[in-house]
Order: sequence, then structure tokens, then C-alpha cells
Amino acid sequence: MTAQHPFDAAMALTPSEASPDVLTGCVSPTYWNMVGPFGGTTAATAVQALMQHPARLGEPLSVTVNFAAALGTGTFQISARPVRTNRSTQHWVIELTQADATGADSVLMTATAVTAARRQTWSQNDTPMPVVPPPHTLPQPHYPADLAWVKAYDMRLVQGAVPDVLDGSGEHSLSQIWLRDEPPRPLDFAALTAMADAFFPRIWLRRASRVPAGTVSLTVYFHAGSDELAQSGSGYLLGQAQAQAFRNGFFDQAAQLWTDAGVLLATAHQIVYYKE
Amino acid sequence: MTAQHPFDAAMALTPSEASPDVLTGCVSPTYWNMVGPFGGTTAATAVQALMQHPARLGEPLSVTVNFAAALGTGTFQISARPVRTNRSTQHWVIELTQADATGADSVLMTATAVTAARRQTWSQNDTPMPVVPPPHTLPQPHYPADLAWVKAYDMRLVQGAVPDVLDGSGEHSLSQIWLRDEPPRPLDFAALTAMADAFFPRIWLRRASRVPAGTVSLTVYFHAGSDELAQSGSGYLLGQAQAQAFRNGFFDQAAQLWTDAGVLLATAHQIVYYKE
Repeated sequence: MTAQHPFDAAMALTPSEASPDVLTGCVSPTYWNMVGPFGGTTAATAVQALMQHPARLGEPLSVTVNFAAALGTGTFQISARPVRTNRSTQHWVIELTQADATGADSVLMTATAVTAARRQTWSQNDTPMPVVPPPHTLPQPHYPADLAWVKAYDMRLVQGAVPDVLDGSGEHSLSQIWLRDEPPRPLDFAALTAMADAFFPRIWLRRASRVPAGTVSLTVYFHAGSDELAQSGSGYLLGQAQAQAFRNGFFDQAAQLWTDAGVLLATAHQIVYYKE
Repeated sequence: MTAQHPFDAAMALTPSEASPDVLTGCVSPTYWNMVGPFGGTTAATAVQALMQHPARLGEPLSVTVNFAAALGTGTFQISARPVRTNRSTQHWVIELTQADATGADSVLMTATAVTAARRQTWSQNDTPMPVVPPPHTLPQPHYPADLAWVKAYDMRLVQGAVPDVLDGSGEHSLSQIWLRDEPPRPLDFAALTAMADAFFPRIWLRRASRVPAGTVSLTVYFHAGSDELAQSGSGYLLGQAQAQAFRNGFFDQAAQLWTDAGVLLATAHQIVYYKE
């Protein structure tokens, strides 16, 4: 018997008997971050919930996840409700809750998503993959050692590490990183969603200062179907992330993810809280 | 008595007696698009609904609007529900419905939003406004004459018009346009949201072909507070929009909006359906 991959364990959702919309999951210690689980896995759970839904039409096109509060350890409930099904698109409303100290349900994540049945059309990639060295020639980045989830990825740094000297001397916010699951695992929409959030806070690089920061809202647009994800196999993706603006407690991040063959799989955006 | 501005008329929402979360509005003919109202006004209605809510904390930080189906003429209901209120952020779930031919409620738009009480912090704009000629020196773009909403804006084209010759010879998807309400109106979060969607489909430019296209999901991140919006007054904003990828029926668009003084007010993203 083969051991289950930690990401599959993190994504395991059990449907309720009451409704196909409601599932139960359990927070994975493998993907623990500082005060809660890695937001990428929480976002991936939203995608996983609709992937498992018996009424799903098509494949993920977009998902927006809002992180309302940190999840605790233990079980959670997630509901994924198809509120509108058109001929080729379907609209989802998603909510994740966990019992609080009093036993009452507390909303920790809201999300919306669109799935779509895609057809072949004229296509054009206007964001070619940057020319960078291959992963095996590059070092692993030095992440803070207290973050469990980082060990669940094999990352190879092209440029834009967390600065070694945190002296406020940062000049840009651009990072380029090869990444794949560790151990390797065939890519799917849930894993791609998690990887779209696998960049450390841009302000650590831009300010050369490790101020507290946390994602408030994340949007992922999928530019590829499951066939193209399958072609990527368990290979590295090249991820690129950069901020456009830092203003009064919040900055944004724009990200792209390509296969090692240069296929743009996803673009993603997030708005992130920071302190000071 | 001064006549009401058409945008204020479009944003007029009447609270229900049953719940502060539920409001009634009416689709404005001034902002009619091809088969329904201009999506920018529909998105703005989501922001307007939470702006009017008696329990609102802070100002808009992010909003994601999913267009499930075209609105018809006449009245609609919108609900804006604060599902989580933290010390400095508040999370909203929004839904717009309209009675269908059978009289049943039909979901036409879903949205989520985050409002936030912002504090002054270290800030940095890494997306300076492009150097472009002032609006009064520039021509008005030639939009299709059958779109009512276009006349509700004063637009001045810097670059990236709908090509005059639609022969498939397009080479890029970048547009830069000065825009303001016509007649001029002091900027607020709802108007800024609408302007974030005021770009014609990028594929018309990229392919030099006017194929059918419609926004599926729109996300706006606000980088400024109401003070900075007020400083912009009723002046022009510079809007910039560009696609990253066109693939099998859907393309994305990244946009930025600056005041004429170069303050980055908002960044926005959308994923758009296109045919063929």
C-alpha cells in the first residue's frame, strides 16, 4: 500500500449525508503556517470542494478566496453551493466554518468560483515565461525555519529571496521561484491554487524588513484545462510574484505560474495586510 | 433643485423594512450595454450596497463580482451581508437577484468584498503613472454607437483604440484612456468600481476583431481612502488595461487607475469570455 501524499491528506473532504454542498475536512499539520494553516491550502480546499461536487459543470476558471480569520487545528465544515448553472459556466458560493470556543459556527473563509466547459478557440499567450536557469542549478531559498508548509514544497530560487540583512534597504518586490510539491505529486487544480499563494509577503523583500503580514483576499484565474495540468505532471512550475503598491496597511501581489515547458497555467492576485 | 446625476440615479438603493441587508434598485437605461446594463454599474451596485449598510466598518479594500447572467430592465434585489467583523476588517457576501419570467428569483450576480479601517503606515507606489499627454489634447475614442453607457463617460484616448480596420492584424492589448463621468461627478468608491470596468474587451484590440465577449468575474483592489478619492474631485482618471493571456474562450485583463496627480487609486483584474 502506498502512503497517501500529504497534500491529498490535506485535501480529504468527507461529504455530509444531509447535502452534497456540505463537506467536512481536517486541518493538516504538514501545511501549518505561523498562526494557522498555509492560506494556499485553505484556498485549495475551496477548489477541492467544488471539484468533488456531483453537480459540477466544467473545470475551474476563477476562484476568489477571502481569509476572514485564521483556522485553528482540527475539523472544519465547508459548503460549496452552485447558485447558477448556465450552458457553459457555473457560479459557486463557498463558505468555510469552524466551531469557536463556545461551540458556535464561526465563518473563517468566504469564496466564490466559476467553473466552465471550455472549447478550443484562437489563443495567444502574451506573457511568455522569463528565461531563467533550470531548477537543478539553483539553490533552495532560506525561509524562516518555523514554517512547516515550506517543507512541503521543493523551491529553487531564481531571484528575489527574503533578504539576509533586514535593514530597510529593499528596492523591488520581484521574486522568481521554481516550485513543486515535496514529495513530487501530479498537478491538479487544487495543488495549482495552493502554489499560487506560495510566495512570502512581498513587503519582506520590498522593505527588507520582516513585518507581520497576511493575505486578506486571493484570486486565481486558470488559463489551462486538466489536460494541460496533466502534461505538467509532477514537474517544477516557475512562479513569479510582484507587488504594484503598498499603501496604509495593505499591498497587492500579482503572480504568474508556468510549466517548465513555458505554458502559462494561472495568473493570480492578492491583497495582503501588513503592519507598520 | 439640481437634477440628480445619472450615476446617482443608477446607484439608488432602497433598504427593505425586513432587513438592513436587503435593498431594491432599478436598472438604469443610461448605462445600458448590449444585452444588459454595463457590468461596471452592476459591480458598483455591490459596493454601493455595502456603503449604505448601517453596520459597515471602514472603507472598501477589495471586491470581487461574478456576473452569472445579464440583468434585464426594471427592479432588482441586492443583499449585502456582513458575515465576519474583525477589529479592522469586515467580510461581506453579496448577491443580486431579479425575478425571471416565471416570477421566481434568479441569481444574476454574486460578490464578496472586504472593508477595512486603514491606518497610516510606510507606503510605496511601485506603479508610477505613465507619462502621457493631458486629456484636453487628446481625441475621444470611436466606440460602437449602440452602447448607451459609453456616453456616460468622457474618455480621451492616449493609445489602444478599437482598431478601425478589423482584419485580425492586432499585435498587443494595451490601452491607456483618460476618463471621467459625463457630466463630471465627484469620485467615490462606487464610481471608481465602475470605471475599473470601463475598458472595451482586450480581444477586440489584440485580434483586431470584434468578437462577442463579456466579463465573467471582476476584482478591484482599492489602494486609496475616501480622502484621496475626494482630492481627485471630478477630474479625469488615467486608466490602463492589458491582457496577459487568451486561451480557449477566456482572457484576463489587468488594469490600473490613477488620479491626474499620479496617485494610484485602484488596480483591477477580470476574466472575460470570448467567442471563437
